[in-house]
Amino acid sequence: MLVSRRRLTAAAALGLGFTRAAQAQADPLPSWRDGPRRRALLDFVAAVTTPGGPDFVPPTERIATFDNDGTLWVEQPAYTQLIFTRDRLRALAPANPGWAQDPVLRAALAGDLSGVLAAGSEGTLRLMGLTLAGLSPETARRLAAEWLATARDARWGRPYTALVYQPMLEVLALLRAHGFATFIVSGGGVEFVRAFSESAYGIPPHQVVGSSFALQPGEAEGRITLAMEPRADFVDDGPGKPVGIARFIGRRPIAAFGNSDGDWQMLRYTTEGPGRRLGMIIHHDDAAREYAYDRQSPVGRLARALDDAPARGWLVTSMRQDWARIFPGD
Amino acid sequence: MLVSRRRLTAAAALGLGFTRAAQAQADPLPSWRDGPRRRALLDFVAAVTTPGGPDFVPPTERIATFDNDGTLWVEQPAYTQLIFTRDRLRALAPANPGWAQDPVLRAALAGDLSGVLAAGSEGTLRLMGLTLAGLSPETARRLAAEWLATARDARWGRPYTALVYQPMLEVLALLRAHGFATFIVSGGGVEFVRAFSESAYGIPPHQVVGSSFALQPGEAEGRITLAMEPRADFVDDGPGKPVGIARFIGRRPIAAFGNSDGDWQMLRYTTEGPGRRLGMIIHHDDAAREYAYDRQSPVGRLARALDDAPARGWLVTSMRQDWARIFPGD
Ligand SMILES: [Ca+2]
Ligand SMILES: [Ca+2]
Repeated sequence: MLVSRRRLTAAAALGLGFTRAAQAQADPLPSWRDGPRRRALLDFVAAVTTPGGPDFVPPTERIATFDNDGTLWVEQPAYTQLIFTRDRLRALAPANPGWAQDPVLRAALAGDLSGVLAAGSEGTLRLMGLTLAGLSPETARRLAAEWLATARDARWGRPYTALVYQPMLEVLALLRAHGFATFIVSGGGVEFVRAFSESAYGIPPHQVVGSSFALQPGEAEGRITLAMEPRADFVDDGPGKPVGIARFIGRRPIAAFGNSDGDWQMLRYTTEGPGRRLGMIIHHDDAAREYAYDRQSPVGRLARALDDAPARGWLVTSMRQDWARIFPGD
Repeated sequence: MLVSRRRLTAAAALGLGFTRAAQAQADPLPSWRDGPRRRALLDFVAAVTTPGGPDFVPPTERIATFDNDGTLWVEQPAYTQLIFTRDRLRALAPANPGWAQDPVLRAALAGDLSGVLAAGSEGTLRLMGLTLAGLSPETARRLAAEWLATARDARWGRPYTALVYQPMLEVLALLRAHGFATFIVSGGGVEFVRAFSESAYGIPPHQVVGSSFALQPGEAEGRITLAMEPRADFVDDGPGKPVGIARFIGRRPIAAFGNSDGDWQMLRYTTEGPGRRLGMIIHHDDAAREYAYDRQSPVGRLARALDDAPARGWLVTSMRQDWARIFPGD
């Protein structure tokens, strides 16, 4: 299959030099160790792209969806967007003295992110809404991009966008090289994810589905304006993921990748469709190279989807066993 | 620029045989008569795609949005989706005897579509909601596709999907050949437009932004279900168009095409951005070959946007003067 300029740009954005791109032709998944998960990925791609084969899927129906936090990049010790929100709240706090009376806000300002997480996704969304209210989507994205350019993860001392999973970058590239359109379907705020999806993953803004805040159209100084309201108008998590897929993508995926119970419905919606399907869970079981967590974690809790995986035929990827490398810089 | 398989498929879907495709290389706009509009289109494409030029735009930012009704296909004597809705209402009426008491429903069932249009877009959306309630998006799209396969326009006796504008198919192909991503941004129901956008225009479902009805997730017979509610949750018209663009596309277009005051905000949002921009209005002034209407029409009313065009630099395409051919079959 020929490669469009748009795709070459994406490959360049992924930091694949021509040498590595040439190697990838020989082995499209160099960071995956040989084993059932690697073989299942390659078998699936071969099956749905072999013309005349029983599982052939036309290119326009080759839709793959990826959760972001914990599936494409690190989500511990707290979602990156929550760390960004904490920093934004701290910048805005002096102008909002009343915030000190609010226990969730107080926890965030003190850096007690587990205290924030205890308030559930509603609590988190409320804090995000406070930092975004009145901004245009373009400004929200710029602020996120500026923060991502300078913030560093405490454990590795690297930019958060360097903590993407190299094996998943290879899956994205493999699928796109075989005519797939790749989408992010994230519980995170859509503008935050769009701030780095193209440079980090080669996924353009219109292929990012996420949670969103209501947009109010208006006019200022003779120009049309859009202002974010503090009220979330769509939560792209759990049962919201199939809704977001139907609304934004308009086609049921034939492959889906997730890491938590928030992906249970997306994995089901994907693999309950007719024909050959692929559902994959990334299992964080490598405390030495990344983190080890599942059933007890307030971030990326994985229990029901893990229990369901064998009966539903979902592949459970062990980061410890299946991945030879975790990050691009390793 | 190389061409991906996905794009070749789209070209085939547009009915461009290889002979016509070869001609198009020589003249990308064979159905446009020479004149200021044709030259402005070609100049714009050259300007934003010339590397090193002052107006160069990187491929990932080459976003073009198209209204559908009256911009890409015929919308007279009534929006095609409204004719489809009338036929669905008639099929469902025997099971809903109470509908006879509702004046707007009674008008629709009697085929009095101007009576329906008099109830405004709220009235139209309410009727659409009644025909869609409880359906999955997939079923809604299948019903629309089945109807489009057999219904015929009264004036030409052709399928509605044959009443697309050949000059606009050429603009879509020209832009895509130059690295643009092309999107529909329509006031019509998103599932109705998705039913034919890929085969008629080469625009996949995820590049269609439209009005939508709320989706209720559920479960039946061990499978995840999505059911449409009769309540519109997004109206992608007028001030809604910039909102839909920001939400679904996530980038301000650099080119936008419309035909009515419902596109005024989209045209403004597009051309108020920095750098080289293109805004175009399709003016229906050809009663002999299509229809002639603007300020007084209940369908596709065009007044404010037409008045604004000169000051804002929007091109007003005259179907009569600028188009050598209207439909692909001509
Ligand atoms: Ca996750
Ligand atoms: Ca229109």
